[in-house]
Amino acid sequence: MKKVNLGLLGCGVVGGGLVELLRRNHSHVLDQSGLDIAVRRVLVRDLDKQRCVDRSLLTDRAEAVFGSDDIDIVVEVMGGVEPARTYISRALELRKSVVTANKALLAHTGGDLFRLAAANRSRIGFEASVCAGIPLIRALQHGLAGNRIESLYGILNGTTNFVLTRVAEDGQSFEEAIEQARARGLCEADPSLDLDGTDAAQKLVLLSRIAFGAEISLSDVCVESIRAVELQDILRAAELGYVVRHVAMARRRNGTIDLRVQPVLLPLTHPLAPIRDEYNAVMLKGDAVGELVFEGKGAGALPTASAVLSDIIEIASSGEPGIPHLPSGKGSPLAGDIESPHYLRFPIVDAPGVIGLIATALGNHGISISHTTAKLVEGSSSRSSEKSKDKSGRASGQGNVTILVHRCSSRALRGAVEEISRLPVLNGKPVMLRIEEKESANPAAQ
Amino acid sequence: MKKVNLGLLGCGVVGGGLVELLRRNHSHVLDQSGLDIAVRRVLVRDLDKQRCVDRSLLTDRAEAVFGSDDIDIVVEVMGGVEPARTYISRALELRKSVVTANKALLAHTGGDLFRLAAANRSRIGFEASVCAGIPLIRALQHGLAGNRIESLYGILNGTTNFVLTRVAEDGQSFEEAIEQARARGLCEADPSLDLDGTDAAQKLVLLSRIAFGAEISLSDVCVESIRAVELQDILRAAELGYVVRHVAMARRRNGTIDLRVQPVLLPLTHPLAPIRDEYNAVMLKGDAVGELVFEGKGAGALPTASAVLSDIIEIASSGEPGIPHLPSGKGSPLAGDIESPHYLRFPIVDAPGVIGLIATALGNHGISISHTTAKLVEGSSSRSSEKSKDKSGRASGQGNVTILVHRCSSRALRGAVEEISRLPVLNGKPVMLRIEEKESANPAAQ
Repeated sequence: MKKVNLGLLGCGVVGGGLVELLRRNHSHVLDQSGLDIAVRRVLVRDLDKQRCVDRSLLTDRAEAVFGSDDIDIVVEVMGGVEPARTYISRALELRKSVVTANKALLAHTGGDLFRLAAANRSRIGFEASVCAGIPLIRALQHGLAGNRIESLYGILNGTTNFVLTRVAEDGQSFEEAIEQARARGLCEADPSLDLDGTDAAQKLVLLSRIAFGAEISLSDVCVESIRAVELQDILRAAELGYVVRHVAMARRRNGTIDLRVQPVLLPLTHPLAPIRDEYNAVMLKGDAVGELVFEGKGAGALPTASAVLSDIIEIASSGEPGIPHLPSGKGSPLAGDIESPHYLRFPIVDAPGVIGLIATALGNHGISISHTTAKLVEGSSSRSSEKSKDKSGRASGQGNVTILVHRCSSRALRGAVEEISRLPVLNGKPVMLRIEEKESANPAAQ
Repeated sequence: MKKVNLGLLGCGVVGGGLVELLRRNHSHVLDQSGLDIAVRRVLVRDLDKQRCVDRSLLTDRAEAVFGSDDIDIVVEVMGGVEPARTYISRALELRKSVVTANKALLAHTGGDLFRLAAANRSRIGFEASVCAGIPLIRALQHGLAGNRIESLYGILNGTTNFVLTRVAEDGQSFEEAIEQARARGLCEADPSLDLDGTDAAQKLVLLSRIAFGAEISLSDVCVESIRAVELQDILRAAELGYVVRHVAMARRRNGTIDLRVQPVLLPLTHPLAPIRDEYNAVMLKGDAVGELVFEGKGAGALPTASAVLSDIIEIASSGEPGIPHLPSGKGSPLAGDIESPHYLRFPIVDAPGVIGLIATALGNHGISISHTTAKLVEGSSSRSSEKSKDKSGRASGQGNVTILVHRCSSRALRGAVEEISRLPVLNGKPVMLRIEEKESANPAAQ
């Protein structure tokens, strides 16, 4: 039996989850691992607030946690960049290992903390920082260590996936679905970090650094919000045999790495297409192992605490760390533009020849159409404004033209769409979404 | 940079895969892990046969591999119980770590080899022994270490799953599907170990020992072959909204552990239902993390070599092992009978009142019916034999009665089916399959 004393920095949702999990599974962990793990000190701002731990463990002095000889592992669950970075750095310098769930900090600081840990022969466990209890960091660091990773596709944000699923399946508006997510405790008061893709991009950065052994920062990721998508795009995608998902992806392309978080259309046979509601999933492709898919809940107090505790057990179980090795981090240059089929929707006034105008503009940019549908809003001509009369003054309807185009570069397509936007037939902002083709065999539905 | 010299015991499919993977990814592994890994000696039976490694590395003396000072890690890829067990034991006694892909050996020997390793502060890596490159052993040993595992469901044999998928989707006979699997290199000359569930049961034993920290042996698993299933059962299951899969399962039930490998009916919403062809998948439920699903290819030279190499890298990267801990292994007693809904099919002669007779017999055993269909084979009465005439001498057809029954114990149901088998209306052996209910939320399709 080995005693392991934890010092917690913070005692919010994840810290509380860890305390509960240790209370519940202390003897199970002791039997399975021989470790007697206990929380010995907890840094809080307000000593008087009611907590899930004994009052005698609380302190408002950070040094009492990371600087104390009787603390074996520092568990950072306070979130945010500062003062978390300072506290973790101090702990590492004092040769204490650190377990953290702080993806924002890790995405922000890059390799610095890991180099500091290596220099001090201490360790950083961060499984909880990406998709909570799904053991993705471990899979990449150890399980696939002999592989060259080709690509990584993930649904990394449960809130956004919940919203997209509810809109698609219940025909709710985005606002209603966001409200429902909030009621289920799935999002913050301000869900922007989720919906706009920042949270997913931070996770993608952490996974990609390990997968590709490269220095990658948040600004390397092309990030697009799901706010560009409307209910009608989701319904139209369904008619065409696709689901809309907010997909984080990183893949090798001609010696470069392409990093994106975008709403994309996935064919129903894609392994990520069936991932619904707040579930997360990642599909990894290694050159030896082929495609692997990992699914589970990517958030929540206990799933996150599960990952924190797994890191604590692994660090405490292992002996002296070996000679640390950090990959060269040379990696590959980042990719520029890529080619994909795309989905386009143009809100139009139903003037004669509008499809011809749009198709001609696309053709002028070398973009070839695979599918077109035009839908008029019933009775819209009765609400017709000045804009919805054509040159002859004849009143016309409003509607949408949906176009699927064959593989083309996003840049070329953007040029065409800009040209089309200047045509007098448009009635609103065009929508442009990539269609994610299935590159290879599909574990679930080939 | 650290040199790691491997000694291979055997040079078949997996050994050849490892040699190829090292050739391909040597410099990638060196950059990522700082390890310079090379095969230094290979035990083979026939020194003259053409191999994928340089002839100078070959030996036919096992001691030259496990007993040699210049070998750091012994890689056992010969298969079978003996002499693999003797060689591995000798290597461990000489304080060498061992990486093995040998599930039959590990399922057979139980904890002995692990106790020997712990006593000698050496290690056994065996990720490759279960589902090749899917990092399941790691997930259970480390990723979910803080969890109490509630249940584990798996499609652990790709050959059987391929056969079931092809029969269901192409309407092939089992014989044709087995032939197709053989043509694709998915099965041995004698596919019995796959189809009868032995291979899956060995993997289930290895996973369950870690998941439940219990001493479990092959004889603790209730194993049923897929040979009990016919094409018509698969088609009828599909009509009723189910797929037939050969599922390995281990779960806690009232303080016991229930271990089975059986063909079962899964509802289409079950996370294992979409796993097709030779793919494997495992759904784990931990008390903190909830349900996780892992999918991928569970066999093949490179996927298996991927797992072998991951173990080599992990063992070589870590420093001195910590003080070894082996779980108490007390675990829980094994479960007896369990209750489920069931699917039944009775081949019948279409005598009047046959459904009534069967239903009455079920009722007498307290078993309640949820669904019944009777199908007559067209024109069968023209082929009618003595057996297909009822008491009145009137010729009658042949066919099948399919019955779904509510939750009941398999034992009670078996009693009822035996009674029904003695009725003069049966025309063949009854089929009895469990229907696996979805206990909880489904990651993919709730």
